[in-house]
Amino acid sequence: MADEKTKTTGLELRSLIKASGELEVSLQDVPIPQPGADEVLVRVEATPLNPSDLGLLFGAADLATLQAAGSAERPVITATVPPSAIKAMAGRLDQSMPVGNEGAGTVIKAGNSVAAQTLLGKTVAMIGGAMYAQYRLIKASDCLLLPIGTTAAEGASCFVNPLTALGMVETMRREGHKALVHTAAASNLGQMLNRICLKDGIELVNIVRSAQQAELLRGQGAKHVCDSSAPSFKDDLNAAMLETGATIAFDAIGGGKLAGQILTAMEAAANKTAKVYSRYGSSVHKQVYLYGSLDTGPTEFSRGFGMTWGIGGWLLFNFLQKIGAADAAKLRQRVASELKTTFASHYTRVVSLQQVLQPDVIAVYAKRATGEKFLIDPSLG
Amino acid sequence: MADEKTKTTGLELRSLIKASGELEVSLQDVPIPQPGADEVLVRVEATPLNPSDLGLLFGAADLATLQAAGSAERPVITATVPPSAIKAMAGRLDQSMPVGNEGAGTVIKAGNSVAAQTLLGKTVAMIGGAMYAQYRLIKASDCLLLPIGTTAAEGASCFVNPLTALGMVETMRREGHKALVHTAAASNLGQMLNRICLKDGIELVNIVRSAQQAELLRGQGAKHVCDSSAPSFKDDLNAAMLETGATIAFDAIGGGKLAGQILTAMEAAANKTAKVYSRYGSSVHKQVYLYGSLDTGPTEFSRGFGMTWGIGGWLLFNFLQKIGAADAAKLRQRVASELKTTFASHYTRVVSLQQVLQPDVIAVYAKRATGEKFLIDPSLG
Repeated sequence: MADEKTKTTGLELRSLIKASGELEVSLQDVPIPQPGADEVLVRVEATPLNPSDLGLLFGAADLATLQAAGSAERPVITATVPPSAIKAMAGRLDQSMPVGNEGAGTVIKAGNSVAAQTLLGKTVAMIGGAMYAQYRLIKASDCLLLPIGTTAAEGASCFVNPLTALGMVETMRREGHKALVHTAAASNLGQMLNRICLKDGIELVNIVRSAQQAELLRGQGAKHVCDSSAPSFKDDLNAAMLETGATIAFDAIGGGKLAGQILTAMEAAANKTAKVYSRYGSSVHKQVYLYGSLDTGPTEFSRGFGMTWGIGGWLLFNFLQKIGAADAAKLRQRVASELKTTFASHYTRVVSLQQVLQPDVIAVYAKRATGEKFLIDPSLG
Repeated sequence: MADEKTKTTGLELRSLIKASGELEVSLQDVPIPQPGADEVLVRVEATPLNPSDLGLLFGAADLATLQAAGSAERPVITATVPPSAIKAMAGRLDQSMPVGNEGAGTVIKAGNSVAAQTLLGKTVAMIGGAMYAQYRLIKASDCLLLPIGTTAAEGASCFVNPLTALGMVETMRREGHKALVHTAAASNLGQMLNRICLKDGIELVNIVRSAQQAELLRGQGAKHVCDSSAPSFKDDLNAAMLETGATIAFDAIGGGKLAGQILTAMEAAANKTAKVYSRYGSSVHKQVYLYGSLDTGPTEFSRGFGMTWGIGGWLLFNFLQKIGAADAAKLRQRVASELKTTFASHYTRVVSLQQVLQPDVIAVYAKRATGEKFLIDPSLG
């Protein structure tokens, strides 16, 4: 970084889906912008590869068709979007899109305003897209100043996972439920949610997909862990619902039968305490929110859980809009003050922008395997 | 009915599912009760066979296993509940259950209160179960006094279909939508909803399953009719969503892919007017309520409609509880005043209680075919 003052361009990752159906992911040299009065220029030093980023990065492309081209310094990845999926991509065709929801880094240039100048030299966290780049121009007011002694890596995941986990608990409270269920619960996000619930005294049913994941969560103090790969899964789930009275779930899987199984278990628990038979089922409202799509296949359920239920999409952005700026700010403050404890993220690998485009690296992070979590450091190139 | 004054018992239809898995539907002679001060005894003369009644009548029994027993006067029907479905019946096992949500008839005995005496000799409509019987004891305050000149047959379906149709329009308004979608739209309920929407100036997308049904609704003034059996169905649905801006649907089918197709068409319409690409889809909330289960198979959808959507159960009883007694009374008043126009029901056949238990009759009404609508007159025996 000795030559940073004389550099005029920086690398930026771009994802392009052509109308022909070809996906092209590449690194572009883009001019380094000058900050306006209220803006700062941030050298991005840490930006996570979240499942929510992969959707924009690869779109509906079939990664089995992935091919590497370009040079080591300027690698290019191509893949084919199946014709059946092109329609869903209509809104982004032939547009070169920057990627990367959130990140953190050092403010290296600042506009003339006091707000901007105050941040010069400081480590800040950011949200807003285009973080898979060496430099990011951003409004000073949109930066979250990290507490002294916090590294960019520690602050890289300040927004998406922490606010999603807090948003789940907040949604539970606002919709009148007293306990909650989470799937893919051994994920980075799931571990965070477990820490929040332990701290706040909320009963949480953790659904995981292996004995190892169950052990991991139990080791972190989780009380209710149900392993969907165990033969006793249905019974375990029923027991956990009865013990906790959970009537709201957040599901990262999306596809398959799990959402319906959760509603069925909630209904069984509700009926254990029902006094009279109603063929419309219990009058307790049961809700599953799908916030992820780890299984991109169709969602299927058999409606054996009465008539008082809902399944719906859950999106952090919509949630923050609904609760309003003041309440959202309170959530952000909590994240900043518990960044090294409740909201700490753990990464298994740090990669450069070039490495994000290497087929052997893609093969690992595109699996979205629980336990694998990549951090990009664009300052590595 | 010459001997009515001396009769001490009346017929009542009962449905019993034994723990062994056998369904038994029979006619029982039950004592005719004496009304208390605030009660009246009603000779039931008209009670409809709604899809919502069939669920209690036959439970999860497999009608392919149906067998007739008993005598012509006291027929008995048996059938087997598959072992896989017995669990869902747990709440009603070994209980002899009366059936019939709503009905109408003549008040033949009344308690001493003024409210009860006022109704003596009058034609009233009722809701509350156990209507598939020759006599029904009910609180005077729970009766809906029918306008003079209204027959029991005309008043038999005063509650379920009219309030469901009005409830859909009211739900649409309260949840902030401006137009709605209805499936199985050529049904008795669907025709009613079409008349309400035409009268109230609300845009309604009618989804039907045949060209004949489409013609029927168009003949009744429906503007937007989409036939799911037509090769152009998807395009027709997309066009109707764009024309109406409908973002809420009420689905009587329940199983299969239709709910997801509706959400997909709503999303396509919303994206036609979107300014920027979001891989999370439009920010317009899209809602499908499943209020019936004409297709009892699983519900399946592919989530190709962004993140701002919901699917849920819709139950008249829950809706009426939510809006409260005063608003529910307003809806009932509207039904009474438009009973022979907007809320008129048409029946294809009138049967006795004995006929309800005849296999050849069951074969027709259990199909729940749109266009077939049975009325029971228990006074026929």
